[in-house]
Amino acid sequence: MSTPTLHAVTWTGGLDDGVLLLVDQSRLPGAVEQVEVRDLEGARAAIANLVVRGPGATGIAAAYALIAHLVPEAHKAGPGANSSVLAGAVAQAVGHLGSSRTAVASLNANLARLRACFERHSGHLTALEMCARLLMEAKRIHREDAELCNRIAHYGAALLPDRGGIYTHSHTGALSSGGVGTALGSILLAHAQGKGISVYVGESRPTLTGARLAAPELHQAGVPATLVCDQSAAGLMVRGLVQAVIIGAERIAANGDLASPVGSYALAVLARHHGIPFYVAAPTTVIDPAQPDGSGFIVEERPADEVRLPASLPDMPCLNPSSDIIPAHLVTAVVSERGVVHRPCPSSIARLLAARE
Amino acid sequence: MSTPTLHAVTWTGGLDDGVLLLVDQSRLPGAVEQVEVRDLEGARAAIANLVVRGPGATGIAAAYALIAHLVPEAHKAGPGANSSVLAGAVAQAVGHLGSSRTAVASLNANLARLRACFERHSGHLTALEMCARLLMEAKRIHREDAELCNRIAHYGAALLPDRGGIYTHSHTGALSSGGVGTALGSILLAHAQGKGISVYVGESRPTLTGARLAAPELHQAGVPATLVCDQSAAGLMVRGLVQAVIIGAERIAANGDLASPVGSYALAVLARHHGIPFYVAAPTTVIDPAQPDGSGFIVEERPADEVRLPASLPDMPCLNPSSDIIPAHLVTAVVSERGVVHRPCPSSIARLLAARE
Repeated sequence: MSTPTLHAVTWTGGLDDGVLLLVDQSRLPGAVEQVEVRDLEGARAAIANLVVRGPGATGIAAAYALIAHLVPEAHKAGPGANSSVLAGAVAQAVGHLGSSRTAVASLNANLARLRACFERHSGHLTALEMCARLLMEAKRIHREDAELCNRIAHYGAALLPDRGGIYTHSHTGALSSGGVGTALGSILLAHAQGKGISVYVGESRPTLTGARLAAPELHQAGVPATLVCDQSAAGLMVRGLVQAVIIGAERIAANGDLASPVGSYALAVLARHHGIPFYVAAPTTVIDPAQPDGSGFIVEERPADEVRLPASLPDMPCLNPSSDIIPAHLVTAVVSERGVVHRPCPSSIARLLAARE
Repeated sequence: MSTPTLHAVTWTGGLDDGVLLLVDQSRLPGAVEQVEVRDLEGARAAIANLVVRGPGATGIAAAYALIAHLVPEAHKAGPGANSSVLAGAVAQAVGHLGSSRTAVASLNANLARLRACFERHSGHLTALEMCARLLMEAKRIHREDAELCNRIAHYGAALLPDRGGIYTHSHTGALSSGGVGTALGSILLAHAQGKGISVYVGESRPTLTGARLAAPELHQAGVPATLVCDQSAAGLMVRGLVQAVIIGAERIAANGDLASPVGSYALAVLARHHGIPFYVAAPTTVIDPAQPDGSGFIVEERPADEVRLPASLPDMPCLNPSSDIIPAHLVTAVVSERGVVHRPCPSSIARLLAARE
C-alpha cells in the first residue's frame, strides 16, 4: 500500500517554534497548498470553511490549534508562571474551536481529552511545561488516529468482495484522517491485496469531496475508479455494477444509528432495495453512548452559497444539510478498529464500546 | 397562471425570411441569449449541446430546423422545381438531426411526421410550396405541444395535494416545451389555483437544469421553492417534508416502464420506500408501443466533461448516463393529456394510446 504523500495536518518543529500546517482541501485538486494556522480565529475559519475536513483530520487540527493558541499565552505569563494562568485561554479555545463544526464528533472529543489532561496536571506544571504536555497528548491523538485507520482498513478490506464494483462517496481517505482513512483506506488496502475491485465514486455535491479528493486519490493509487454524479448511484445498482457500498460515519448512536455525509441515507435505502451490502467504516471514537438513537444528532446546516450557483438567483432559498441520519437497520455492518459488527444493535454497539476500554 | 415570457423555440417571419431562434439554455440563468440556427450543423450542435433541451422543445426545434435546411435548397432548385428534388435534403436532415440526441423520442417522432407529410405531398407541390406545407405542419406540432402541456397541467395540478411539499428535479417547465411544460406546468397551475404547496427542486447534476432553470422559473412565478442537492432528496423524505414527487418522462414503453432524466430512478425507489406518491407527467406522444418494456430503451451516454470538474484529473474516467429507466411498478400514476393512469400497466397504457387516436 503506497504511503500517502500529502498529510492533511502537520505540526512541524517543537513547542516554541512549532507551526500547525493544513493542506487547503477546499482548493484540491486544482491547487496543492499548505496554509499555516496562526491563531484561534484562523483555526476556526479553516475548520468551518473545510480547509481541513473529515472526522479524523478535523479533530487532530483542533487539538494542535489549541496548543498553538496556548504557547503565546504561556510566554506572556512568563517562565515561572503556574499553568493555572492558562485556564481562561483553554476554556476560550475549547468553546471557540468546538463550535466551529457541529457535525464532527472528534472535534469536541479531542478538545475534551486535552482539557481533561490540562485539569489533571494543572497546578503541578508551569504554563510552558503544560503546553509541552498537551502537545505530547495531541501528537498521541494524531498517532492513535493513524493506528485506528490501519486497523479499520484491515477489517474493511477483508469484508470487501474479491472482485466487482464498490460504490463510495464523500472522501474518507488519507486527507480525511491522521492515517490512511477509513472507507477509502479499506478500498485501497483491498486493491493492494490483489482484490479485483473497481470503484464508483459519487462526486458528493455540494462540496464535491468525492470528485475532488476521493476519485483522484484512487486514480493516483492505480485503483480502477469511475467518477459519477451522486444521482447515478441507483442506476449503477440496478444494472448490477455495484457489489458493495462502503462509506464513513461522523457519529454512531448507542443503537447503531449513524450520522454520515449527506447522500449516505439515500445510498443506504438504495443498497437495501437492490440487496447490496451497505458497510460503514469508522473508529469506535465516533460512538456516542449518550445518544440512545440517531434522533438526537444535530444535522449541521451549511451555507446556502455552497448549493447556489454563481449564476443562480442570489436570493434563491436553499437547504444544505451536511449530514444524513441512517437508521441502524439499513446498515449491513460497521467496520471499526475493534472488528466488524454485523447488523449493529444496542448490544453489539455496547460490546464494541466495552472492547475499546 | 402567468404566461411564460421566454419561449424556448421561436420561428420568426414567414417562409423566405423565416429564422429559427433558440434561447440558449446552456447559459441560463446567467445570460439570456437567443441564438439563430442557420444550418443543419448548427441545429445538430444546439441539440447535442443542450442549447435547446426538454422533450417538447427539442422536437419542435428539430422540426423547424428541417424547414430551415430545406428553404435554401428549394430556392437553389428554382421557382418551378418539383418538390421531389428535396428528397435527398429531407433524408439528410432527418438522419442528421435524428441522431443528435438519442434520449429524446419527440425528435424522431416529429421528423418522421414531417417526412410522412413530405412523402404524402411529394409530386403534387413545387419545392417552395412543399416548404410552406412543412412549415405549416411544424407550427401545428408546436401548437399541439402547447395544448398538450395545458391539458397535462390541468390533470397534474388536480392530482397534487392541497398543501405540502412537492419534490421535482430536472426541468419540465416552459423552456422544455412549446407551452407551460409538464411536471413543472402542473406545479405552477396548482399554485395558481391556490394550493398551498412548496417545492423542493433537485439541482440535477450534471447539467444543473433544476438549479439553472426549474428553481428560477418557480421562484419568479412566486411559488415557494427551495433548491437542494440531488442527494438531499432522501433526507427530505424521511423528515416528512415531501408529500408527492412529480417529474417528466422522455419515453414510455408499452408496459408503463419509463425513461426519465438521470436521478429519476433513485427518486422512484426512495418515494416507494417512504410511501410517497411518485407521479410522472408526459404527453402520450412519448409512448412507444414498439417497446414492450424499458429494457429496450437506449440510455444516452453524455460527454464525461459534464461530470469532470475543471480541476479534476483530465483523464479521470466518468460515467454520465443522461437517463434512468424506471420500472412501471414504482410509478404511482402517469399524468397525460388524456388523463391520469394510476399504476400503469400494459392494458392501461394501451387504453391511453387508443384514446389518443
